[in-house]
Amino acid sequence: MGADVAADLFPANRHAEFEPEVVLLRSEPLTGFDSAEARATLRQSELLVTGWGCPPVSAAVLNEAPRLKAIVHTGGSVKHHLSAAVWDRGIVVTSAAAANALPVAEYTLATILLANKRVIPSSRLLGRTQRFDRATDLDHTIGNFGKRIGLVGASAIGRRVIELLGPFDLEVVVADPYLSSRDAALLGVTRLDLEELISTSDVVSLHAPALPETHHLIDGARIRMMKRGATLINTARGSLVDQRALTDRLVTGEIYAVLDVTDPWIPAPGDRLYTLPNVLLTPHIAGSLGTELRRLAAAALDEAKRIADGRTPRHPVVIDDLTRIA
Amino acid sequence: MGADVAADLFPANRHAEFEPEVVLLRSEPLTGFDSAEARATLRQSELLVTGWGCPPVSAAVLNEAPRLKAIVHTGGSVKHHLSAAVWDRGIVVTSAAAANALPVAEYTLATILLANKRVIPSSRLLGRTQRFDRATDLDHTIGNFGKRIGLVGASAIGRRVIELLGPFDLEVVVADPYLSSRDAALLGVTRLDLEELISTSDVVSLHAPALPETHHLIDGARIRMMKRGATLINTARGSLVDQRALTDRLVTGEIYAVLDVTDPWIPAPGDRLYTLPNVLLTPHIAGSLGTELRRLAAAALDEAKRIADGRTPRHPVVIDDLTRIA
Repeated sequence: MGADVAADLFPANRHAEFEPEVVLLRSEPLTGFDSAEARATLRQSELLVTGWGCPPVSAAVLNEAPRLKAIVHTGGSVKHHLSAAVWDRGIVVTSAAAANALPVAEYTLATILLANKRVIPSSRLLGRTQRFDRATDLDHTIGNFGKRIGLVGASAIGRRVIELLGPFDLEVVVADPYLSSRDAALLGVTRLDLEELISTSDVVSLHAPALPETHHLIDGARIRMMKRGATLINTARGSLVDQRALTDRLVTGEIYAVLDVTDPWIPAPGDRLYTLPNVLLTPHIAGSLGTELRRLAAAALDEAKRIADGRTPRHPVVIDDLTRIA
Repeated sequence: MGADVAADLFPANRHAEFEPEVVLLRSEPLTGFDSAEARATLRQSELLVTGWGCPPVSAAVLNEAPRLKAIVHTGGSVKHHLSAAVWDRGIVVTSAAAANALPVAEYTLATILLANKRVIPSSRLLGRTQRFDRATDLDHTIGNFGKRIGLVGASAIGRRVIELLGPFDLEVVVADPYLSSRDAALLGVTRLDLEELISTSDVVSLHAPALPETHHLIDGARIRMMKRGATLINTARGSLVDQRALTDRLVTGEIYAVLDVTDPWIPAPGDRLYTLPNVLLTPHIAGSLGTELRRLAAAALDEAKRIADGRTPRHPVVIDDLTRIA
């Protein structure tokens, strides 16, 4: 993994936490696999702990690692550095997707609650005019009572959002082609098709993976289906949304958006999304950052120790997952 | 109550919900007690449903209402319209403080989660510069993991915030002179004295009533005790905080604030609070608004029916409460 990531996740004073089950071969991270030193480490390694910045673990790299039995990833997605060759060799793979889901779900919960109360637009209006008339400036449709929250994708993050929405007087509906009616009932949510969800929800929040078949899943027609006054929340990937069509509808003031991801990851200078009063734009910060990295490190330590002890890992990634999850 | 409040709480299509236990004497609200019509209604009334805009229910008003047995208030506080004379006559009083606590606690939860992630300052920086460098613009201390949340006041709202904080990896500490160690243990929180709470918490959120003894409870000395990077959230009353001292510390950029109430209720034109990048200022919207008024109406309907049936009300207000609650 990158040296900066390693310093955040596993500062030197945490190295002892791997013991006694796991012996660290190096106190500094490997940031690539090409050096003689890296190859010497690979030859001895039974387990790799990977993170953001890890180069691809190719067949050539695997050939240098004859004893490798497991790869414990500290991030959410293993797609960028692991390929089928890893699973072909019977190597166990785990990810921290479950731990990484928590902060994204928390950001989503917080922005749902604020969106229903129009907190950001009210604050901006107050700041701009330095006055507020409750009789005329308040919208009678606001409030976190009796609203429908539509979640697109019952992913790990989507499911955590469902859990977190439990204590509120909000209806939760979900669109996900992989969600069975039985699972929806267990989660306590109603399953809807995507277009019914989009056209009836007060908040539409995206929790689907970026895959070829989800590119512009929220296209112009679907954006135009959103109810007046509804909010689109995207903490997933910018590619899920036709951003030009979204911007065109936002410019009318009919809908609101909370965008932690865009395409590109922050909009180009001059983009209208920077100045629209009905958009809360954040720089891809919903995921694990700062102190939340300690949770990823703890999850990876736990998996490494379980594997070293011969126990079943908590969050294995199987090869079939790669085509349908983030 | 005010005609606008009545229209929001009890539109004509909800009047039938009072039946059969309760008979509505009027389809339009009384907005005062002085007219001949009002006096005629008072003479017949066994129960009054009151709301924002209700004038004082004085001894003279009570003299016109010989059959009155109960006052069901649809708002949180009865202090502005009810005095000891009401209790002296044995009239049962209930309030919707419990229902009204929910949206305030929800706003608090949402702003705690966003404060720990620096969502508002990051969004403003991104909007202003139209660029974001994760290496230099991100603060490594952010995150909703391992932070201490200090609640000032174990009021109905404070207790709901404690419940809502249950699913998060955050430590909750409370300062309240009326909270016993036993109750703190039952709530699963640590009790601290106010100054230890203020000086060690990452977020300090106010849930105390406005009383003579809580005026400027958060004074200059206490504001200067707050940790660098900490956030003050005030959804309670502006009078709890020495606003000039708070503004002076905010100007240094050392702390953050989320202010839904100020003193006066929105700052005077030109006030520095309108333009500080580390302040989220909202126009007293945390409480029940819009669809949330339906919850207050439902709570009042429930109380009126319980009282009419001779059952115990859920949320009686006793006279001793008046000196220590909002």
